[in-house]
Amino acid sequence: VPSPDLSVWGIVVAAGSGSRFGTTKQYELIGGRSVLDRAVDATLHACGGVVAVVPASDVERLRRDDVLYVGGGSTRSASVRRGLDAVPAVADVIVVHDGVRPNAGPALFDAVVAAVRGGAEGAVCAIPLTDTIRRADGGTVDRSDLVAVQTPQAFRAEVLRRAYEGEGDATDDATLVEAVGGRVVVVAGAPDNIKITHAHDLAVAAALIGCPP
Amino acid sequence: VPSPDLSVWGIVVAAGSGSRFGTTKQYELIGGRSVLDRAVDATLHACGGVVAVVPASDVERLRRDDVLYVGGGSTRSASVRRGLDAVPAVADVIVVHDGVRPNAGPALFDAVVAAVRGGAEGAVCAIPLTDTIRRADGGTVDRSDLVAVQTPQAFRAEVLRRAYEGEGDATDDATLVEAVGGRVVVVAGAPDNIKITHAHDLAVAAALIGCPP
Repeated sequence: VPSPDLSVWGIVVAAGSGSRFGTTKQYELIGGRSVLDRAVDATLHACGGVVAVVPASDVERLRRDDVLYVGGGSTRSASVRRGLDAVPAVADVIVVHDGVRPNAGPALFDAVVAAVRGGAEGAVCAIPLTDTIRRADGGTVDRSDLVAVQTPQAFRAEVLRRAYEGEGDATDDATLVEAVGGRVVVVAGAPDNIKITHAHDLAVAAALIGCPP
Repeated sequence: VPSPDLSVWGIVVAAGSGSRFGTTKQYELIGGRSVLDRAVDATLHACGGVVAVVPASDVERLRRDDVLYVGGGSTRSASVRRGLDAVPAVADVIVVHDGVRPNAGPALFDAVVAAVRGGAEGAVCAIPLTDTIRRADGGTVDRSDLVAVQTPQAFRAEVLRRAYEGEGDATDDATLVEAVGGRVVVVAGAPDNIKITHAHDLAVAAALIGCPP
């Protein structure tokens, strides 16, 4: 077993209070393991250490020897900032993963980290859009050059830290990295790497993993 | 039981040969019923008659008293044209539905037909995009006014026929209707109204319907 690569750290963002979902979806169980633990385990595959950003009220309660829990902020970006504060300065690549994507496989983590090791300042995984896209007020949009962005996303640590120095807020880290001039590449994501958004997505994730409902 | 409204006809498009999927996915079973039969049954909810466009080699084999099977063409638009040829002239509203969307509920059909009855030339159901969207060559796209288009879609029959008079080809009927000046409105779709695209989508659809795998 190789020793963990402490130059790569992960931030798993799971600070949502479930205002849309109706409950804290990151703690729901799929095949006996929580959505969050599944996301953390996948991130640990590629990272020497993982910071999980969770609701502040849950920090004391959650316990895993291999995870550093920190309390989140009021927005996703505020939560990532808290996570960044907890990542050791030695890390030169930082992987950010949504805590509500329980199905991301190791290959996705390997791919985004390899892209950054290969010279990119950031790498996101993404998939082609399969549905026709239109503007709500009329007109079909050419989707041929559009992709749906997923996590994991990997970044050179100093670029990600620079992106989060300001007050910027975005639902996506690559957006902030590009706003400070960072170059972000796209690697192939996976259609089954779903985000738990609606209650029925738990059954979907279980079906994709092959767990009994 | 009200008698069927023969002024509304449905076209269920299921002529794909499965080149991407690896098999003819419209015949796969979910809870003992084929994907296509589920799509047809949902369409019959709102329509006095249904034309199902299937691979030409399957027309003789398929049998349902309440469905008219016709052979498809080499593109989706060619298949819709074959379907239109089989829809009686008396129909003044035509609903088009993907034969690989087995989970569309009756409310979606009611909504698109009602929108056309209410004056629109076309109505599609669509859902907001939940993922961040970016251009493959860089840059985040503002998704706030974008929607992912689903079927069913309903149209005034003469407008849909006019849209298909030319040689135009599109993956989406509303796109062709707008190309001839038709006005298309968007009604709320459903996140669980998935299109069977990948093999794993069968398990997903089953989970959403609540069928055992």
